Amino acid sequence: MSESASTPTPAKSMDAIMALCKRRGFIYQASEIYGGINGFWDYGPLGAQMKKNLRDAWWEDMIMRPCWGRNGPDGHPVQCVPVETRIIQHPKVWEASGHVGGFNDPMVDCKETRGRYRYDHVSVFVPENGDAGDKPVFAYMGDTPSEARQRKKAEKTFGAIKSVALSSLPQPWARVIAPDAEKPGSLTEPRMFNLMFDTITGAIRDESNKAYLRPETAQGIFVQFKNVIDTTRIKVPFGIGNTGTSFRNEVTPRNYTFRSREFEQAELEFFCHPDESADWYKFWRDFRMEWWKAIGLGGDGGGNLILREHEKDELSHYSQGTSDVEYRFPFTAPGFGELEGIAHRGNYDLTQHQAHSKVKLEYNDTERGELLPNGSRRGEKYLPHCVEPAAGLDRGVLALICEAYTKDDSRPSPEFMKFHPRIAPVKAGVFPLVNKDGMPEVAEKLHTELSRKFWRQGMIETDAKQTIGKRYARMDEAGCPFCFTIDGDTLTNQTVTVRDRDSGQQQRIGIDKVAGFLSEKLAP
Amino acid sequence: MSESASTPTPAKSMDAIMALCKRRGFIYQASEIYGGINGFWDYGPLGAQMKKNLRDAWWEDMIMRPCWGRNGPDGHPVQCVPVETRIIQHPKVWEASGHVGGFNDPMVDCKETRGRYRYDHVSVFVPENGDAGDKPVFAYMGDTPSEARQRKKAEKTFGAIKSVALSSLPQPWARVIAPDAEKPGSLTEPRMFNLMFDTITGAIRDESNKAYLRPETAQGIFVQFKNVIDTTRIKVPFGIGNTGTSFRNEVTPRNYTFRSREFEQAELEFFCHPDESADWYKFWRDFRMEWWKAIGLGGDGGGNLILREHEKDELSHYSQGTSDVEYRFPFTAPGFGELEGIAHRGNYDLTQHQAHSKVKLEYNDTERGELLPNGSRRGEKYLPHCVEPAAGLDRGVLALICEAYTKDDSRPSPEFMKFHPRIAPVKAGVFPLVNKDGMPEVAEKLHTELSRKFWRQGMIETDAKQTIGKRYARMDEAGCPFCFTIDGDTLTNQTVTVRDRDSGQQQRIGIDKVAGFLSEKLAP
Repeated sequence: MSESASTPTPAKSMDAIMALCKRRGFIYQASEIYGGINGFWDYGPLGAQMKKNLRDAWWEDMIMRPCWGRNGPDGHPVQCVPVETRIIQHPKVWEASGHVGGFNDPMVDCKETRGRYRYDHVSVFVPENGDAGDKPVFAYMGDTPSEARQRKKAEKTFGAIKSVALSSLPQPWARVIAPDAEKPGSLTEPRMFNLMFDTITGAIRDESNKAYLRPETAQGIFVQFKNVIDTTRIKVPFGIGNTGTSFRNEVTPRNYTFRSREFEQAELEFFCHPDESADWYKFWRDFRMEWWKAIGLGGDGGGNLILREHEKDELSHYSQGTSDVEYRFPFTAPGFGELEGIAHRGNYDLTQHQAHSKVKLEYNDTERGELLPNGSRRGEKYLPHCVEPAAGLDRGVLALICEAYTKDDSRPSPEFMKFHPRIAPVKAGVFPLVNKDGMPEVAEKLHTELSRKFWRQGMIETDAKQTIGKRYARMDEAGCPFCFTIDGDTLTNQTVTVRDRDSGQQQRIGIDKVAGFLSEKLAP
Repeated sequence: MSESASTPTPAKSMDAIMALCKRRGFIYQASEIYGGINGFWDYGPLGAQMKKNLRDAWWEDMIMRPCWGRNGPDGHPVQCVPVETRIIQHPKVWEASGHVGGFNDPMVDCKETRGRYRYDHVSVFVPENGDAGDKPVFAYMGDTPSEARQRKKAEKTFGAIKSVALSSLPQPWARVIAPDAEKPGSLTEPRMFNLMFDTITGAIRDESNKAYLRPETAQGIFVQFKNVIDTTRIKVPFGIGNTGTSFRNEVTPRNYTFRSREFEQAELEFFCHPDESADWYKFWRDFRMEWWKAIGLGGDGGGNLILREHEKDELSHYSQGTSDVEYRFPFTAPGFGELEGIAHRGNYDLTQHQAHSKVKLEYNDTERGELLPNGSRRGEKYLPHCVEPAAGLDRGVLALICEAYTKDDSRPSPEFMKFHPRIAPVKAGVFPLVNKDGMPEVAEKLHTELSRKFWRQGMIETDAKQTIGKRYARMDEAGCPFCFTIDGDTLTNQTVTVRDRDSGQQQRIGIDKVAGFLSEKLAP
């Protein structure tokens, strides 16, 4: 998470957003009737449909018609194909990728409470002047109940206090009282903890059958790179996209669905010649930023979204450039949290898999190399460089929800969700003004017509119960962009009202014009 | 797998189908460059797009416009909503569902080779008259290299032989030589083996943090049933759909993607009043059969597809009826293999979760119970009964591939895939007859128009290289239903040829009619 100098808009209340998400069936705690399970979240009907819409928008705009049909920096249309690879891969995949050796967070354990904490998340309350003498100091985790308790104890002991990182205190921490502990000196030195979940495949439970749940979908693409080259006619430059569930055993899952242990990714690896990779990196970085704005994060002049170029010292040793698309979530404001990373990975991954698998992964580029007398080229063999736009779909849904959430106490429905029509789970509502006088029949007919026409794009709702105001309010909370209402006039002049979610304004159009109106509004 | 009395069509060659799937990028071995991993398969570009088409067809026809807008047996439109639930749930979910206690296969181990086999999959070659005297007999697993080796040894020892199930021989099996073993007597007695993969969540590796990878998506629905009821306005009868990856640690994965360890399901739980559940069971059973036929398994008069009602003694103790939609796969022919199970589960699952979670899951049906003087009803509280159509998406893809695979040596392209247009990964090809004379430019323009119009439905291919015959052959193997070719006449009279994949026949239509033609053909 990073900070920015731009003027922050007032942060929305995360509690209010979470309450609406639960109340309207966007997001539920996983296994809620069993008390939940830390770091796992389910989607209710509206959330599941919304997430499908986001996944489909990515697939359409990245695979089926990449970059909205635009040319790449080479002047040709961008070309991409999909794959679908498994969560469980051969364990050597993760040795080659570096995840077995390097995918670690340092942890400290508490010998008294058996608690375990991410080393870099632990802070300590010390006296304001930093000198605790022979008194113990008080460790805590930010954003947890332990913070308030330790603060209270520290203030009682020292009076004025300040907070420092645990890592700034010399080890061993004989005078540090761990969160929820009674006695000082219970924290161990930091130890590495691998973030991959593991399991055993096959019937025999021994180390040789250990396997991992993938921590990213990207490696599935690199491992199948050669198969894609060999079994399609696609040529470099091109991309391979992959969506699916990944797992990271986060030690401290937090911030709602932002840092969860099971999450869905949408990753593209774009393979190109090393000489062109810098151009492709810029192209993808800019397109991905534009894309997130186009599907609903461009509000307030796009002020909640930034493209942050990593500093040289933040880069992996193999990366020639990395940018993050970051969103100002309520829990990061005024700072930002990562939504997608666009990394220039060079040929690091293909090099690693070639070395570990002993299978040649070089690409034979027949459009390069010396011009021969017959007019063709000698060809050039190389490991393509790779630009990786890697998006988090759950973080995408969360950002879209936070951005859409709007509170306006002057409206009859004070909370509403300003979803882009393409992302909105409910595309339209069709209502009879009252549940009699032939109106329900007309509404049902229009509902059937719209359902038949728009079934591939989203839900069309209908409902005849309660006051029309309550039904509009419900559609506002679901983020439904348009409501069509059949009233007394409909029966005489064949017009209906169209209500716009964001303005609350209504206009009348012919009932035979409704499908065309909606078709135009839902066009991406 | 079951047999049927209907006349079998000649089985297609599974080897030929698998070769085409690899060659054209439908299905790859997972982690292939590392030698693969037993029981896991990836999808290449054509397979990934095809599987998405199948998943979307299910979502559209089950959730967004259930049963194609048809009324259910109660005379009202069928209503369904989606959820998306996690692979890792609270472990108590699987205690309640019975998977911790009961989801077991009996296994036998070989003390000599350390091999482990599913008890009911092991057969033994014995002399034809069944009397081996004091000689050892030869155990093997069907469809594996051990079968041929043991057969050879058995014939050398006994001459005429027959095969019997291991379970038919009395224990202990002192004279049975296990597959790949040298000495008799190495097989242990059968022991139960749980099919759920397990892992550890959180930082502390002990039994209290053990969790399971879900063996089915259905339980996620039951666990969130109360949340869906409480946060939507949907009323019984209604369905909740859920798609996603499930895991079963199959001891002997086999038959390509049919029995794999990681697979995707599309499950619906349809909740209804106990009195109406028998009607809904019949309704769903028949609709699901019709659906599979409608998307491409209806060829040869639907002869490769059967709906098999389970016998009373096959039913779970709580089930009032179960039917399987079964397909005649090449590896099961003349028998059939399960594609989808439609089960009447009564209120077993909700009862179990209510008992284990101590959370009331009863539904309050305000449209039932005694009629009150004010015209409303007293209401009735009950645990809804449930009908579960549970489809396997990977098995669906495999059945659609097997059904589509057609060999016709009289054609220039002897192998082609007769996919239904809705399922076909490539919807259309647009080709210039030759790569000059202005034809590529016209083709590119048409390709762009079709891509823009059909991007939500599938890939539109274009290719200007090689002879037109080779390009058609490639489209045939990909199962692309229509190819549009720009030739010399196009430049003078604005018509193109349309080639039909199945007949190979061509007709001419106006280039301005192509989008309309395709739109009509792709309509579900």
